Amino acid sequence: MSTMPVFSGSEPARLGILGAGQLGRMLALAAHPLGIECIFLDPSESACAVAVGKRLRADFDDGNVLNGLAAACPVVTLEFENVPVRTLEVLSESTTVWPPQAALAVAQDRLAEKEYFRELDIPVGPFCAVDQAEDFQTALDTVRLPAILKARRLGYDGKGQAVVRSAEDLPAAWEAIGAVPAVLEGLIELQREFSIIGVRGQDGRLRFYDASENLHRNGVLVRAQPRPDEPLAAQARAYSEAVMSSLGYVGVMAFEFFVGPDETLLANEIAPRVHNSGHWTIEGAVCSQFENHVRAVTGLPLGDTGSRGPCVMRNLIGALPERSQVLAMPGAHLHHYGKAPRPGRKVGHITLTADNAQDLQAREAELRQMLGSTGNVSD
Amino acid sequence: MSTMPVFSGSEPARLGILGAGQLGRMLALAAHPLGIECIFLDPSESACAVAVGKRLRADFDDGNVLNGLAAACPVVTLEFENVPVRTLEVLSESTTVWPPQAALAVAQDRLAEKEYFRELDIPVGPFCAVDQAEDFQTALDTVRLPAILKARRLGYDGKGQAVVRSAEDLPAAWEAIGAVPAVLEGLIELQREFSIIGVRGQDGRLRFYDASENLHRNGVLVRAQPRPDEPLAAQARAYSEAVMSSLGYVGVMAFEFFVGPDETLLANEIAPRVHNSGHWTIEGAVCSQFENHVRAVTGLPLGDTGSRGPCVMRNLIGALPERSQVLAMPGAHLHHYGKAPRPGRKVGHITLTADNAQDLQAREAELRQMLGSTGNVSD
Repeated sequence: MSTMPVFSGSEPARLGILGAGQLGRMLALAAHPLGIECIFLDPSESACAVAVGKRLRADFDDGNVLNGLAAACPVVTLEFENVPVRTLEVLSESTTVWPPQAALAVAQDRLAEKEYFRELDIPVGPFCAVDQAEDFQTALDTVRLPAILKARRLGYDGKGQAVVRSAEDLPAAWEAIGAVPAVLEGLIELQREFSIIGVRGQDGRLRFYDASENLHRNGVLVRAQPRPDEPLAAQARAYSEAVMSSLGYVGVMAFEFFVGPDETLLANEIAPRVHNSGHWTIEGAVCSQFENHVRAVTGLPLGDTGSRGPCVMRNLIGALPERSQVLAMPGAHLHHYGKAPRPGRKVGHITLTADNAQDLQAREAELRQMLGSTGNVSD
Repeated sequence: MSTMPVFSGSEPARLGILGAGQLGRMLALAAHPLGIECIFLDPSESACAVAVGKRLRADFDDGNVLNGLAAACPVVTLEFENVPVRTLEVLSESTTVWPPQAALAVAQDRLAEKEYFRELDIPVGPFCAVDQAEDFQTALDTVRLPAILKARRLGYDGKGQAVVRSAEDLPAAWEAIGAVPAVLEGLIELQREFSIIGVRGQDGRLRFYDASENLHRNGVLVRAQPRPDEPLAAQARAYSEAVMSSLGYVGVMAFEFFVGPDETLLANEIAPRVHNSGHWTIEGAVCSQFENHVRAVTGLPLGDTGSRGPCVMRNLIGALPERSQVLAMPGAHLHHYGKAPRPGRKVGHITLTADNAQDLQAREAELRQMLGSTGNVSD
């Protein structure tokens, strides 16, 4: 089903989005200036994107609502990867859906994902499937401890994970994550972590943002910064291109990498959507990841992914500082998601911009202190 | 009535806006990331801001609706200056309204405005009131022809104006604008036109954007570009500061200037709101005029008005080019207002950014050609 005339023309148009959290909110804020309104499907009580677009409140398997969404929207995309693949199948019968189902299937299952990387000759750290208690010994023989046991499905932001320091820890770790199919991953002595955010158009063209150096605490991203000088970025972009091309991917995809000892590059995971480590692109790049995702899935030409100068992003986790404190800081760009604060919940982010690296560093030191004093999770 | 805790804190908050056109739409797009939702009051059928906030559809003199807006919003502002001053008076009884009524009273009446400039020793071109046919001779004695007769009230985008080339033209010109109270203004031999956009906080602090060189066709702005090197900018900022200070102004105010022969600086008019000649600040300044207006009226600290690099803005008037054509151009930022095109109607704008002036010039030449071929009003 070709949908090109709708979006390539000049008439107002509608894009469907599965999920209505902050990523959906920022997608809609980027879509409005293009004359594109977003309609969200999200069953949850709190759905902060409702402030910027219409929302259908229903489950992802509600056939009538899916049909209505497909009828209203020539293209449907998603803002989180744990949408049932079946939902995409149903939608695909009557509208266009990007990214492709295959990308979701891979991203939803840590084991399938790692096996997919291996197929494409992308290096990954040591891992072993743990589907049942009988797999414990094989896993311990394959993966050197300490290791981390991760549920194969539905894990994000550090949930569904347990550290395994000794062989005796494994049964308890497995119980702790719910005794579900899992993967035991060898802990890597991390030098640093970075992600590559790329966007692929319907014509197969690809663009990448500067590598983003990322800092996690308790499995949650707290800080991200563009690193134009990341020495392993070219290799990582090649891996990212291999994944996107082989999946026939359309839209923004994030690929997270570990750098181990001796500058070893290892694939961690992909996210088939806009990504927290790319939030700095709103102020820091010519065309943000949000606008580029909208452009890609609607078949519009991709925007310039080039950086606009030094910046750094810090998440607001569990607490929101006062607006007056944030906005008094030079170069501070507040992104308040309109969500009620709860421990561990991402409720906003701040991107700092500056003319040069020295000013940026000074501003970040001030921001870090302020966040620490207002109950935010920080480094 | 102090409203500071609401906006200075971290809770979601609501800002009321009189009018729901494209300026309201862009105000709301800037307010959402601050955790501020906008509620619009606008009686018109087409109100393109409805896509990004709630809208009360009622007349500006509907007391019940005004009370409801005041109850919902700790601060109310406006996106166009032709709101009845009485509306602001009613709202002010139960909420905070910015900019001040005095600014509206001045901006709504061309004669009062010019007299206000004179009081503040701000130079204006030759003018004379024409309230009735009996004033024709005095006007012709005072103002050298050719001149332009402008209605004192409700004129914008070149409406309510008629050129007077000879004394015999004046009666017909006056009939043409509706035989309403008017001002005859001597035509100035324009070297150039520019505007100064400033923002004044509740604490009296002021910040200015780079002067914007503006190009009008048939009274409608078609192009605006930041000119950090405008030689008369410092003088113009001083005039702007004089006006804002004497009015006790809070919010963004635009001040349009003429430059006549021998670099003579003459005041044209003020707009007590965000302004078309400041649309380039979305991509071209650290903090846009829209965000800064929201910050100022809600009592938040002002943002950095510094420029981020070369850019130029072109209006989309009467026709929207295809999205695919616009977005294929490097550095093109489309702002589609979601309005149906009609001759002479502003339906969007495009801001071009580039790394340097040469690239910008090349990009603009391409854009200009494209707009010319798609039915847009252009220079």
